[in-house]
Parts: sequence; structure tokens; C-alpha cells
Amino acid sequence: MSDPLRLGIAGLGTVGAGVVKIVRQKSALLAERAGREITISAVAARHRDKDRGVPLSAYAWEDDPVTLATRDDVDVFVELMGGSDGPAKAATEAALKAGKDVITANKALLAHHGQALAELAEANGAVLRFEAAVAGGIPVIKALTEGLAGNEITRVMGVMNGTCNYILTRMEDGGLTYEEAFAEADALGFLEADPELDVGGIDAGHKLSLLAAIAYGTQVNFAGVELEGIGNVTIDDIRQAADMGFKIKLLGVTRMTGRGLEQSMAPCLVPAGSPLGQLQGGTNMVVLEGDQVGQIVMRGAGAGEGPTASAVMGDVMDVARGLRASTFGQPASALRATNTAQATLPAPFYLRLGLVDKPGALAKVATALGEAGVSINRMRQYDHTAATAPVLIVTHKTTRAALDKALSAMQETGVVAVRPVALRIEEV
Amino acid sequence: MSDPLRLGIAGLGTVGAGVVKIVRQKSALLAERAGREITISAVAARHRDKDRGVPLSAYAWEDDPVTLATRDDVDVFVELMGGSDGPAKAATEAALKAGKDVITANKALLAHHGQALAELAEANGAVLRFEAAVAGGIPVIKALTEGLAGNEITRVMGVMNGTCNYILTRMEDGGLTYEEAFAEADALGFLEADPELDVGGIDAGHKLSLLAAIAYGTQVNFAGVELEGIGNVTIDDIRQAADMGFKIKLLGVTRMTGRGLEQSMAPCLVPAGSPLGQLQGGTNMVVLEGDQVGQIVMRGAGAGEGPTASAVMGDVMDVARGLRASTFGQPASALRATNTAQATLPAPFYLRLGLVDKPGALAKVATALGEAGVSINRMRQYDHTAATAPVLIVTHKTTRAALDKALSAMQETGVVAVRPVALRIEEV
Repeated sequence: MSDPLRLGIAGLGTVGAGVVKIVRQKSALLAERAGREITISAVAARHRDKDRGVPLSAYAWEDDPVTLATRDDVDVFVELMGGSDGPAKAATEAALKAGKDVITANKALLAHHGQALAELAEANGAVLRFEAAVAGGIPVIKALTEGLAGNEITRVMGVMNGTCNYILTRMEDGGLTYEEAFAEADALGFLEADPELDVGGIDAGHKLSLLAAIAYGTQVNFAGVELEGIGNVTIDDIRQAADMGFKIKLLGVTRMTGRGLEQSMAPCLVPAGSPLGQLQGGTNMVVLEGDQVGQIVMRGAGAGEGPTASAVMGDVMDVARGLRASTFGQPASALRATNTAQATLPAPFYLRLGLVDKPGALAKVATALGEAGVSINRMRQYDHTAATAPVLIVTHKTTRAALDKALSAMQETGVVAVRPVALRIEEV
Repeated sequence: MSDPLRLGIAGLGTVGAGVVKIVRQKSALLAERAGREITISAVAARHRDKDRGVPLSAYAWEDDPVTLATRDDVDVFVELMGGSDGPAKAATEAALKAGKDVITANKALLAHHGQALAELAEANGAVLRFEAAVAGGIPVIKALTEGLAGNEITRVMGVMNGTCNYILTRMEDGGLTYEEAFAEADALGFLEADPELDVGGIDAGHKLSLLAAIAYGTQVNFAGVELEGIGNVTIDDIRQAADMGFKIKLLGVTRMTGRGLEQSMAPCLVPAGSPLGQLQGGTNMVVLEGDQVGQIVMRGAGAGEGPTASAVMGDVMDVARGLRASTFGQPASALRATNTAQATLPAPFYLRLGLVDKPGALAKVATALGEAGVSINRMRQYDHTAATAPVLIVTHKTTRAALDKALSAMQETGVVAVRPVALRIEEV
């Protein structure tokens, strides 16, 4: 049996404590599978005295993660602190420069500095892996980077923020308003300290940018992600989308188009009967599409101690077994900078309009759409008592630009009483 | 860039031709991702002159796969011939003995000789990988072996024979009898030359035995798989299961119990709303459950040129990148022989009975169940005009042994007019 693989773990929150537990409680199983022991040399966290439900006295304590990352008795630096900059970045850089392998769950760090860190890892012969950063326990980074390596990837989609999916599911099945569902998620501790990371789509956007880099061999480009949160989704939209056979999800979509890389994280409609449409609550789902394999759907827990620690341990076991994969599936120097295409591919759209209740209002809307080249697939006007007539339209495939032109023209007719809602329908 | 990785491909059916196409058409993409070129040195198949839709003249031709497997200019022997013995086994052994890596899609070969071949690979420092052997394009071998390596695996389930799922789906949605749906699948070319491989559950059983070996660190034990095909599933069962909220699937289940390894491939009921219950047509699904990660569901095409070639190429790319994993996730010498437990864990069962239409018949059934310790969860007797009264029962959790005792006792009462149907309900 080879020498033990010695970990240094920085960050002892839920995930860090979970990793320590697995290493302690499954040492025989892990050693059998890896052909060597997995040990912990040292740990670091902000508060030394906090009870984390796991004994830590056998490990050296470091107050400074940079010191931890560069200890002689650490082979792999496990970064579970979080944050796109500050100590996480400093310690990761220090570890890589010292030739240590790094395993991280930090999507923000990689979304902002992935290219530089991947280059640094390669320059120092180190491995930088991040399965736990995307979709929690679902081994999607491995599936995309390795399992589907013989495919040209045609599209990657994902529901990758469990909190958002929980809020949308509760609005649907509990009849809650957005504000009520948000408060419920908050009370359950599902929200990040800055909730905008969740409901603004930023966290999920970080993850999407990492998947896109692997899928298309491009440099991570989080700034190129078209981001829209779920804050404007109303219960009316959810109900009326359901009436047309759709569910609303905060859906990430990335594909390479003739005009550049499309990365979009926004509320979208998906068919209610599709795997994405059937996804309930806090569960995550990633859909990988390749020209050879067709569609692969992966579903599992996107957060939590066990699932996230499982993903970290998957990376640890790879390193222990000598499976040293590159960060984004090819040499970092070969990753291409890319143009950004803002959802340029035509798609069907869902429109919710509130029209003034006057003869000819609907005709004006239809004319505005027709003149912009947007054709109508389905239309429903609902019974109403208020002065505003609710109208739903599902368009045939069109571009966002054509749709925006139609919406502007509609506004000028004076028949639109409330701000229209336009959501893309993603065909799955 | 490193030296090219040179393949020798034996078997040029659908999958073999698909692999050749990918290597030819995606050479730049593959080289970029692997950091080296992937080339083909030689091919072998039974008939040299057949048109396979892909140019082969650039490759050396071998009539004998053993000769191909041991050529000096072959680094990786790609075995796509099929068959548990004969040329596939001989060539695989020859390749491994010569220190060549082997990639195969051959579930029968590994189900019968997996342990010996894994040992042979290790003794010669070679890699033996088989992603394409299980669930087609779904990268489930990788997910289970590597991604979930930090978990104790608690259960693996799968719908892994698309033909069976197609037949069951057509019975359900088309109202076809088993014989009609079978004939339709046959006409579409979905069946193996020996259809019993499909409908008898053998092919799916092969796959399950490979997953079990990885999940539990045990030697492949196909003989220990409790096998039951779909030939006795009737349209009445499908309809009445649906009426109770279930679907019938040919479901593989493996778990380690206190009494040994349970491996079962049999028609089971699963909740209609679960991912397994919602699976339609020829698609495959594998559910991996770990003590840390919870439930991971993977769904995709289980057969066909593109998906299977994609899985073969995943293994090829691993080898090209220097990711040399062991066959079953740990050293072959450490894989344990295992006791076989024939579905000993208690489960709820679905019973379909046809009773003689006489007063007291149902009481005798209930008594037989009660005396065997089987308690009833739900019962329905259907309206009927024939002399036989159809009765459906869903039991609480019980063992198969207790149920069999109750069924014997029922037979002796003389109230059972037709052979009872008993199917396990798998909780998912």
C-alpha cells in the first residue's frame, strides 16, 4: 500500500465537518478503495473553540489557512471556506504554488478566478478539482469532463439552486406569494447570508459558468452570464404557465452558437412533464446534451452536509487513486477566450399581458407582434371582473430582439395596462 | 503533446462503426481534450467486405481479433464483438497478457469472467474498463466507481434494458398484450438474436451484477442474481397497478444485507410519480444511493450507436489522459466473494388474485395472509361478470417467504381460481 494521502482542511462549517466525519468513520473503506489511507494532518477555521460535532484534537490547528495550505505534511489542500477572494483565494494560490493539489467547493472563487487558478495549478504540476462546487452531490463535473469527453456538447441545462427551486415549488403547491415563500425559505435557513446570491441567480450563475468552460473548452466567463433572478415571478405566472402545460424554473442554459457562447440563468418555462418540469423542492438537476450521447439527466441533492462532502470526497479519492484530471478538461492554456452571445438563438416565449378592457385591444397586441415578425402559437384571454384583461400568449420561436420590438410597439398603443412579463420557453 | 494513443478495434457492428466515426470526425477536439491524438491502427471483424458507412482502408485489417489485440502498434484493445466466451474472451485475455489496456462494451463477458479478467489486468499493469457495458451512454460506472467513492452504497437500482421498458410502456399506453408489444419490438429490431437475453432479464442481470461488484467491493456474481423476466406480466397487472398508483418496471435492485448480497432483476412495482415510474420507452435509468449523497438518479439512452460509442470513448479518453482506474473500484485481489441473499429484506407486495365467486372466499384469503403474518395495506375487489372475482391486495412489508406460505395456504382453501400474481413493490 502506498503512503497515506494527507489532507489539510480549511473551513469547518457544515461541509468541512462532514468531510472530517467521512475520513474518520470510513477510513477502512476509503483505504480499500484507494489502495492507500486518507488522513488529515491539519485543519483551519475562524473559531477554534466551536463544537462541530466531530473530534479535531488529533489534527494540528492553524489559524491561518495560508500556513495550513503550505505545510509539509499536507498533500492536498481542501478549501471549504468560500468567498471569491480573501483567504480562500490566498490559500488556494499558496497551495498551488507549493505544488499541493487543491480540492474546493468554492464556485465563486472559480467563477471569478478559474482561469488563473487552473493555469497556476498546471504550472506547478498540481491538480485543482471542484466537483462539490456545482450541483452538490451530483457528480456532474466528472460526467461532463470525463464521461462525455467523446461528445461535442450541444447544450447544458440545470436547476442548480435548491433554494430558488424550493421557493418556486412552494409558490406552486402551497399557493404562497413570492414574499411568503421567501420568508419560509429564510426561516428554514435555506438562504445565503446575502440572499441575492440565491434568488438573484448569482450562485447558480457561478455554477453555470464552470459547466460552460468544460463543455466548450472556453475560459470561465461569469461576467458573460445573462442573469435574471426569480424575484419578479408571480403566483399568477406560475398558475397560468401551469394552465398552458409548463412549470417555471430558474434554469441555467449554455450552448455554443455561431455568434458566441450563450450563458443564461433566468426564470424559464419548461414542459410540466419533462424531467426538469417534474423537479420538486430543493433537489438539483443537470441535463447534459452531446451530439453522440443525446440527453443525460442527473438528479440529486444540491446542498447539505452529506451530499456536498460526498462530492469533495469524490475528488479526494481521485487524487488518492492517482486520477489526476485537468481542471476544465483540457490544458488551461488551450482554453479559448470567447465572445458572449446573449441568448441569440430563437426560442418560443411566454407572454403575460394585462390589457385595458376596450374593444380592439387584443387586435393591437396581435398587430404589434405580427409587425415585429413574432407569430402566435397559442393565446388565451381569461375571464375577468377587474378593468384589466389578463391575456396569455405562447409565441412560436422568435428572437428576444424581435419580441422586445413588439413589446415596445404594444406600449405605444396604450392598450397595455401593466408591465408585460416575457419568459423564455426552453425546449427540453 | 504526448505520443498518440493507438486503438485496435475488434467488432465493427453499430457500436464499432460509431467509435470509428467519432475518432475520425472529432480528431481535433479529442486531441485538444486529451493532450494527445487518438488514432486507430487496426480493425477486425467477421466480414471484411461489408459496407459499414465509414472508410476503413487507412487501418490494418486483421481477421483474427487475438492477432489484433497483440499488435505492437495497438495500445488499447477495444472489444466490441460481444459474447461471454469465444473470440471476445480469447482476445481480451491475449491483450491483457500483452499488457495492453482493454475497453469493452461486453456485459456478458464481464458478468461471467469479470473477476478473472480484472486480476489478469492488474497482474499485467493494464487497465480494463467497461462504461459502455452498463446503461449505454449514461456514465454510471464512472459515477459509482469514482464520483461516489466516499459513500457506503446503500442501494443501486436500475431500469437497464430498454427493450423491456419499451414493451411494458407499449402495453400500458397502447393497450397491447405482451405478445403484441413483443412483436412490435421485434419488428423494430429492438430484440437480441436470442430474445430471452432481453425479456428474460439476462442482459439487465449482467449489468446489475457489474454494478453490485463496484458498489459493495465484491466479486462479480452473476449466478447470484435472482432473475425473473417480463413474460408473465399481463395488461391486467399493468392496469391494476396503475389504479393503485404504481407502474411495473423490470427493475434491478442490489443491496448488501446482514445476510449477504441481494441482487434481484424482476418485474417490480414503483410509485407512478417517482423518476423510475415516469420513465417511458427505451430510455434507461440508474439510481445510486449512498449514505452521504442520498439518491442520485441518472437517465439517458441505454443503447444505440451514438450513446454506446460515447461511453466507449469516455473510457478511451480516460486512458488517453492517464486516468487509469481499477476495474471494479479497488484492487481485484481485495474484492470479496460473497454470500447471496435472495431478496431477504421485507418489502410490500402487490398480489393479484382471481377468486371463485362464493361467499367467504375473501375471508379465506385474508385468513391465510393473517396466519402467515402478512398484513394487508390496501385491498380492492373489482366488479365482475365472469365467475372469477378479481381481487388486488397491497401488503404491508413482509418477506417473500411469509408471502409464499400465505399463497400455499390459500391454494389449499380451494377459493383461488387462477394462479396468483405476486410482485414486489420497491420503495423509491
